[in-house]
Amino acid sequence: MASGFSALIHPVILCGGSGTRLWPASRESMPKQFTPLVNADSSTFQDTARRVADGTAFSRPTIITSSDARFIVAEQLLQAEVQADIVLEPERRDSAAAVAVAALHAARRDPEAVVLILAADHVIGDTAAFVDAARAAAVGAQAGRIMTLGIEPTAPSTAYGYIRKGASIDGVEGAYEVGRFVEKPNRHGAESLIADGALWNSGYFLFRADVMLAELETYAPEILAATRAALDGATTDLDFLRLDATAFASAPKTSIDYAVMERTDRAGVLPVSFPWSDVGTWDAVWDVLPRDALGNAVRGRVELVETRGSLVHSEGEHLTAVVGLDDVVVVSTPDAVLVTSKAKAGLVKELVTQLREKAHPEADAHRRMFRPWGWYQRIDIGERFQVKRIMVTPGGRLSLQKHFHRAEHWVVVRGTAEVTVDDRVVLVHENEAVYLPIGSMHRLTNPGKIPLELIEVQVGSYTGEDDIIRVEDIYGR
Amino acid sequence: MASGFSALIHPVILCGGSGTRLWPASRESMPKQFTPLVNADSSTFQDTARRVADGTAFSRPTIITSSDARFIVAEQLLQAEVQADIVLEPERRDSAAAVAVAALHAARRDPEAVVLILAADHVIGDTAAFVDAARAAAVGAQAGRIMTLGIEPTAPSTAYGYIRKGASIDGVEGAYEVGRFVEKPNRHGAESLIADGALWNSGYFLFRADVMLAELETYAPEILAATRAALDGATTDLDFLRLDATAFASAPKTSIDYAVMERTDRAGVLPVSFPWSDVGTWDAVWDVLPRDALGNAVRGRVELVETRGSLVHSEGEHLTAVVGLDDVVVVSTPDAVLVTSKAKAGLVKELVTQLREKAHPEADAHRRMFRPWGWYQRIDIGERFQVKRIMVTPGGRLSLQKHFHRAEHWVVVRGTAEVTVDDRVVLVHENEAVYLPIGSMHRLTNPGKIPLELIEVQVGSYTGEDDIIRVEDIYGR
Repeated sequence: MASGFSALIHPVILCGGSGTRLWPASRESMPKQFTPLVNADSSTFQDTARRVADGTAFSRPTIITSSDARFIVAEQLLQAEVQADIVLEPERRDSAAAVAVAALHAARRDPEAVVLILAADHVIGDTAAFVDAARAAAVGAQAGRIMTLGIEPTAPSTAYGYIRKGASIDGVEGAYEVGRFVEKPNRHGAESLIADGALWNSGYFLFRADVMLAELETYAPEILAATRAALDGATTDLDFLRLDATAFASAPKTSIDYAVMERTDRAGVLPVSFPWSDVGTWDAVWDVLPRDALGNAVRGRVELVETRGSLVHSEGEHLTAVVGLDDVVVVSTPDAVLVTSKAKAGLVKELVTQLREKAHPEADAHRRMFRPWGWYQRIDIGERFQVKRIMVTPGGRLSLQKHFHRAEHWVVVRGTAEVTVDDRVVLVHENEAVYLPIGSMHRLTNPGKIPLELIEVQVGSYTGEDDIIRVEDIYGR
Repeated sequence: MASGFSALIHPVILCGGSGTRLWPASRESMPKQFTPLVNADSSTFQDTARRVADGTAFSRPTIITSSDARFIVAEQLLQAEVQADIVLEPERRDSAAAVAVAALHAARRDPEAVVLILAADHVIGDTAAFVDAARAAAVGAQAGRIMTLGIEPTAPSTAYGYIRKGASIDGVEGAYEVGRFVEKPNRHGAESLIADGALWNSGYFLFRADVMLAELETYAPEILAATRAALDGATTDLDFLRLDATAFASAPKTSIDYAVMERTDRAGVLPVSFPWSDVGTWDAVWDVLPRDALGNAVRGRVELVETRGSLVHSEGEHLTAVVGLDDVVVVSTPDAVLVTSKAKAGLVKELVTQLREKAHPEADAHRRMFRPWGWYQRIDIGERFQVKRIMVTPGGRLSLQKHFHRAEHWVVVRGTAEVTVDDRVVLVHENEAVYLPIGSMHRLTNPGKIPLELIEVQVGSYTGEDDIIRVEDIYGR
């Protein structure tokens, strides 16, 4: 194709974001890049990982994510059948630190490795065109440029930053020097930029590891020093590489655009025209979804009457009906419902801030909470009881634990449980129950080959998550 | 007050409607008149019953309702501390048949009893003014008129029928003969009617029983014959008077307005000006609710951002958020969500029709299903299991029953259960469980003084409601 680049590109997927503007589907406990937002059976993170799975173009990818998301990342990679290194950031330090870690990590194997930085939450409509573009830009990266992919605008969007093109780059077909990075403009500014041939700033970067490290040394030496120490002090935890927390915390919190890209004279841009979206808000999600003749994008149990141009998602068993409204967004989840308009969807970020201020747990926690061993979901709660549905993956094992304020009844509804209660170990099969008295030491394991599902009825004066004493845990929690 | 009427008025509350335009709060299984729609702690039916509880003005009321709603009516009367006769219609035959039953039933005790027909689903802002108006109109009724209350319009509503006033009625202060009944007009028509002094047709009627029977004999003899036979053949069932089904089914299905009021020359109207609404649609509900400074009427766990003039109701544990929309209606219930605008709320009726056509159970059934012994609510469902929360009132007793396809685990979370399993009877206390194998004959009773609540986990190849063999039932089902 359009490539003189023959070595393998080293992809690094950044997926530390929390995506609050897509609440209630996206929350801190399960950010948008891990949810089946656009495709019903895969997340944008999985789509991104698969997009760089072509072994003739890419080497084994690296994932940089938060400690909280590590089990989700591992589970989703397993589902997507993609093998990767997983690097854990002890806290969020924005993209400059993450890119520095990516460059340092790649340089350990090959200082001249060409690194491709990818966001985990973008939608790209044409993988072949994307791979061709990456390989074409890699030529510039190999020659010492820090290349970006610049998306040919399809509308005067005010949601994206822009890149003005400079002079052509000799020897890199179709590429330009970066004239200037432009912050998100207003509508009029966007129109002028497009008239001048400016491109959307996609946030994809390609660079040689040693080149990025040199630029960091010049423009952001504190970030480089902090991340180098964080990587030197990193520990291996199960399958994860965990950066040293103290060192990493000392990295200034800033974007790679600000730290390097706007300062370096090595910035280049390759204009590309594949379909692309950062699906940053619900109106952008609507924009990339298939729609019916009336312009509605629906999922789940949805009924519409005289409704046009709307996004209506209904999760689980819920029935969601919209009557006589146009251009609205309705997202119904098992514990929270959002109703907004496409025009005002950007305000959802403020809603989440408001929910946090009022300490609503739904601001950050999903009803279904994913754990390394599977998930649990509250299905009912009363004054002195709580009911949960618990799923344990084959081989999954909860921590050895006890509670001071509640007894638990477990009824197995699928699969087989191995239950430890004090010094007894019993197998509990489908349609069997077991009782765990207050104060008993207990543990739940799925010894079988199919998922284990059980209904847990907690009874007691207090049923909060924090009434738990963990004695032993195979996941190191 | 404005009354020369000194005898007691006999109130008859009609509550056979299903109120589909207020879906999902109102459904066939629990119509709007029984839900806490306007007041958080009482239904409009209860408010109506209390409105005629003044023993100096009213005699013991009669309730005419459907067989399906009988236990709800009994339970709500108990809660409201109102004693009444309850007459059950075997099927819906519209208001003419119900009014005929009311007249016949009252005439058995006193042929000249003055009957007041009330709807169960109206909101009246001033009980004293209502009672005064009823007593003033009763003077006309006693004199042989069939009186209606005509509401002074506060807006050119197209949702109500109108009454044009005729000549003053001698001897009934403030009352007029009915000039003409006018069907729901368009906006322009409504404005003209109001300019001409027309009144809203409230659907409240006052008449002497013998006068109404005479008019029915003249204008609707088939209805009178059918309802008389239905009452003659009525049976007493627990505390209910159950009309004979075959006889009642032969009554033509028509409204009292059409059958009598538009034909009789005895129709009179008393103009009244107390705050009144039939809360027929969600915009009408918004209209009668207290609202905040931005014009929002909210209930439950609701968060709003840049939202004005909206009705947002969130039932149960759900969090419902509206962002950047004005004049919308959002009603979130445990199994269904409605999003519409105040302007288009009338279309909800069509939505329910659509839901029925597609056989969605949420069209007519609530998540929480009320039974004579209490209620049950599904809280989770999977491929081979279902979980319910069950509440049994003190003294409540479910039927003796068995299932062919499911076993059941019951965990008591509040109160004490008396459980019969085949030939055993056991008491099950809070935090205890009992297992009911497939095919076992079982029965659940609350022998205690506080409500019994339990979590039922059903496991089996089929968990539908119709897998039940009832052997014995104290409620005659």
